[in-house]
Amino acid sequence: MTGSLVVVGLGPGDLSLVTPEVSAALSVATDVVGYIPYVARVARREGLTVHASDNRAELARASLALDLAAAGRQVVVVSSGDPGVFAMASAVFEALENAPDLHALDIRVLPGITAMLAAAARVGAPLGHDFCAINLSDNLKPWALVERRLRLAVDADFAIALYNPRSLRRPFQFARTLEILREACGPERLITFARAVTTPEEYIDTVTLAEARPEMADMRTVVLVGNSATRRVGRHIYTPRHAA
Amino acid sequence: MTGSLVVVGLGPGDLSLVTPEVSAALSVATDVVGYIPYVARVARREGLTVHASDNRAELARASLALDLAAAGRQVVVVSSGDPGVFAMASAVFEALENAPDLHALDIRVLPGITAMLAAAARVGAPLGHDFCAINLSDNLKPWALVERRLRLAVDADFAIALYNPRSLRRPFQFARTLEILREACGPERLITFARAVTTPEEYIDTVTLAEARPEMADMRTVVLVGNSATRRVGRHIYTPRHAA
Repeated sequence: MTGSLVVVGLGPGDLSLVTPEVSAALSVATDVVGYIPYVARVARREGLTVHASDNRAELARASLALDLAAAGRQVVVVSSGDPGVFAMASAVFEALENAPDLHALDIRVLPGITAMLAAAARVGAPLGHDFCAINLSDNLKPWALVERRLRLAVDADFAIALYNPRSLRRPFQFARTLEILREACGPERLITFARAVTTPEEYIDTVTLAEARPEMADMRTVVLVGNSATRRVGRHIYTPRHAA
Repeated sequence: MTGSLVVVGLGPGDLSLVTPEVSAALSVATDVVGYIPYVARVARREGLTVHASDNRAELARASLALDLAAAGRQVVVVSSGDPGVFAMASAVFEALENAPDLHALDIRVLPGITAMLAAAARVGAPLGHDFCAINLSDNLKPWALVERRLRLAVDADFAIALYNPRSLRRPFQFARTLEILREACGPERLITFARAVTTPEEYIDTVTLAEARPEMADMRTVVLVGNSATRRVGRHIYTPRHAA
């Protein structure tokens, strides 16, 4: 039998945000490959082999998935959120680049609800105008580039979604991010901290930049920074469709 | 009975990309409100009243939805893609701002698969690094601001998703966009045109900026411009997780 590799997004956590397309792909998989907590979200069944690996092992995980597919298995690589947004799809293509003999493999990517969209929906419509998404981790890019992108994003008056804002290994970067944002946007700009969106541990809070503290974010948090027009209406946060 | 308003995203077109959460909301609605082709995607059933309106009538549509909910109806406003990305959620909160007596209404937003994520998945992982989303319509913002954002986005080396690139009413803006991008990114940068993604009319093509022509886009197209590292691997397009 010819193998295949499908890279899927499980959404932010709640089962009701897994698309039927992704559920169907999981139902015919022989092998599921992914980071331990994401693989844990896939129902076990007879005939399904699971390959769970640690964080920061993306490239090894992608290579394993390619090898299994090349050996004829029906492989699903699971990501949280959307696989193409700071998740496994890019790692799979990087591994494919290193394996020219596998370029003809049947590889597909199935989209999912990425964290910023789930978080935005929970509070209203803070991404309702032009916006950008920046991964604050400097594991794969120099920190100076992150700072530069933050300043240009504020210059462009984008609403900004910040992924991977803070971890035990990187405690200082997000504190610096808040400094840059306060300097560039002023103290009144709205910022939403959305932790573990749609899971039982969900915690969401919107404050001003003056009130924001680094400890409000961790690796399970996505942070949404409003543009200059973002405001409250009733219990909601929204960014108008019009320019400020 | 207390009314409610739920703003949902139907995804890019294919039914298998409608989340179970959105399907559940539609199954208990008494009224569905939306732009004609999106309302057409909702299955008719007894007890469901549909309110279909023309494009560019977003604010009137949002006000109607608020009024129906205030009158005790279970209202679902449908958008294509994600309701918070250049769609109806922001218009609903704008209408709410104009109706302070309705601020206590039960309003929720349910996320969906937005066009750029579906398009990106189809070709690989072109949004695999930091990226931005820009609405090219200048109906609600000055064109000079769009040009400024395009230049800053290229400066930041974001991958760029362009929504509403071109319409009969706005034939020149996208031609100008291609000029700006060619000047700022050079002729070899990859650009993906994804029309009517996941529908029977889907047409997707990736070319270089040198080869790109304005006629390759229309209002059903989302355009993805790679960053400086975006490249082909086998049949796929991807942006590495590392900085260029």
